[in-house]
Amino acid sequence: MQVTVVALRAFPQLYAHSITWVCHAGTVSSDPTRPPVCILGLGLIGGSLLRALAASGRNTFGYNRSSETVDAAVAAGYDASTDLEATLRRAADVDALIVLATPMTVLDQIIPTVATIAPTCLLTDVVSVKDPVANVVAEHHPTARYVGGHPMAGTADSGWAATDPELFVDAMWMVTTADDTAADDWLTIASMARDAGARVVPAANDAHDRAVAAISHLPHLTADVTAVVGAGESDLALSLAAGSFRDGTRVAATAPALQRAMLEANGIALLNALSETIDRLIAARDELRDHGTVKVLVNDGHRARLEYDAIAGAARQPITDVSVGDPGWAQEMRRQAHQGRVWLG
Amino acid sequence: MQVTVVALRAFPQLYAHSITWVCHAGTVSSDPTRPPVCILGLGLIGGSLLRALAASGRNTFGYNRSSETVDAAVAAGYDASTDLEATLRRAADVDALIVLATPMTVLDQIIPTVATIAPTCLLTDVVSVKDPVANVVAEHHPTARYVGGHPMAGTADSGWAATDPELFVDAMWMVTTADDTAADDWLTIASMARDAGARVVPAANDAHDRAVAAISHLPHLTADVTAVVGAGESDLALSLAAGSFRDGTRVAATAPALQRAMLEANGIALLNALSETIDRLIAARDELRDHGTVKVLVNDGHRARLEYDAIAGAARQPITDVSVGDPGWAQEMRRQAHQGRVWLG
Repeated sequence: MQVTVVALRAFPQLYAHSITWVCHAGTVSSDPTRPPVCILGLGLIGGSLLRALAASGRNTFGYNRSSETVDAAVAAGYDASTDLEATLRRAADVDALIVLATPMTVLDQIIPTVATIAPTCLLTDVVSVKDPVANVVAEHHPTARYVGGHPMAGTADSGWAATDPELFVDAMWMVTTADDTAADDWLTIASMARDAGARVVPAANDAHDRAVAAISHLPHLTADVTAVVGAGESDLALSLAAGSFRDGTRVAATAPALQRAMLEANGIALLNALSETIDRLIAARDELRDHGTVKVLVNDGHRARLEYDAIAGAARQPITDVSVGDPGWAQEMRRQAHQGRVWLG
Repeated sequence: MQVTVVALRAFPQLYAHSITWVCHAGTVSSDPTRPPVCILGLGLIGGSLLRALAASGRNTFGYNRSSETVDAAVAAGYDASTDLEATLRRAADVDALIVLATPMTVLDQIIPTVATIAPTCLLTDVVSVKDPVANVVAEHHPTARYVGGHPMAGTADSGWAATDPELFVDAMWMVTTADDTAADDWLTIASMARDAGARVVPAANDAHDRAVAAISHLPHLTADVTAVVGAGESDLALSLAAGSFRDGTRVAATAPALQRAMLEANGIALLNALSETIDRLIAARDELRDHGTVKVLVNDGHRARLEYDAIAGAARQPITDVSVGDPGWAQEMRRQAHQGRVWLG
């Protein structure tokens, strides 16, 4: 009952019109794909997810190490605690879905506690790499029911103060879709992503990790190096800097600890993307030095950006003609996702 | 009288309230720092400047090679022609300030015509490099009264359709400020930048060219290479791409011919910036491969971006305690500009 009271404080308007439904969404939901959600870590991603899911009517509660964050969440009407063990006991009691939303670097401290206190709860995460998280889970909680996830959303800001219940609206949310993924568990994770407003991209962990190295982790390093060279030139340079520098260096403002946790966890894939970047820049430098032109890189870059614009600008078609749990469903959904389709439930 | 009529068509509301002033701003202005302005090239920058200056009440006319552009400008109520020689004869007749707003690559075709038909008109330009333009002017029009300029404004779009009379509002507009720059001519160029809404940054040509190599030209190459590596990874990668990729590759959408004209004209300075970029990325790759961390580049990049944020976010102080034409004025204004100050007239 306490949870419902807190939710009423946070969303009086919403609940005034749907009080029957709120009672229905109590500790034992009648929809098995929509259990209570327990979020461990209430920073930008975890905190935004708590807010988004609460706004959608889901039964939610969370944990954060910092009492400052928890105080802020509670003051905003959310159900949060600094007591990890108590939070996990509660998760076990209500068979909650547990979301690992802490930095990658502390997962090996948290997962053993999850394994001890809430061993049968379904587990997902929101970390930006998938194979390394799967390895940590396998090491510290070998019997876990675990299906990984990664929402493609973020800002250069971090912490509870930066949270936004709309952060995931229309974002892409990768959900691990392996040949041995349990269909029911997959549906539960994907439904949570949908409730947060996101569109689901079914993918294999290794393909995901290579993809984000190229389109998320590498862009942090190119932003970092662009910022360094610009600032190192002169104050006059920073004074003249306009749109190309501002946009091209935006993510360099992300807290260094968060950048490092994200990039270093995906070291192998990032090394490949970074090596290709260096090779192409060296070729451009040689072309400029020897022939006075940057034709190849500029033409290739322009073509690549137009390709991205076409994909980003097109309406995403839904994955069709396959139901979760059908024979070969995982492979078929991955195939359609590689064509740019998304799962909309 | 024709010019005024055209202006009335373009800005009936403005002129209805200031008709006395419009007559005052006829072909011979009483303010010697605000002569008529003749703009050669009506793409994004030249076209936006025509619109901005006309909106400020300046007497303006322009030339463009393409009849499509000229038709669009005339249809919008502006005074434009496809006849370069007639436009330059008119500029000579009214002693207009001539703005070179064509791509760098055609300056060596246009400047000889300017030298022949309008040899005594004051000349400026809006090209993104300054030493190379000064060299082309010296070669083809050695007696020119020329003071270079560079507005730090642009978008990935180009052509008349992308023009915007607000493009220069609060932008930085570099104006060449050498020890031998004529004070009156400098004031005329700087006043034009102010009338377009910009803030004036007095700088030497070589310092400017090094600065824009680092904060404008290099960011095009890093955007290009980031786009290429992302698009080359997989369609899944482009499908998952979010803010870091979108912002980090934005200027790769700029037309390749415009990117090349801009970057290749500043080849030496760009080579230096690009070589430093490559060196830093190689160091980051080695650190990641050998020690599993990207600490140095991420920390340096974060610090550099915060430095930029501090400069970009601070109110710009005006240059003070020096008047244009004072003994040593150019040196003193450059000194204050290097501290981030701007000339506001």
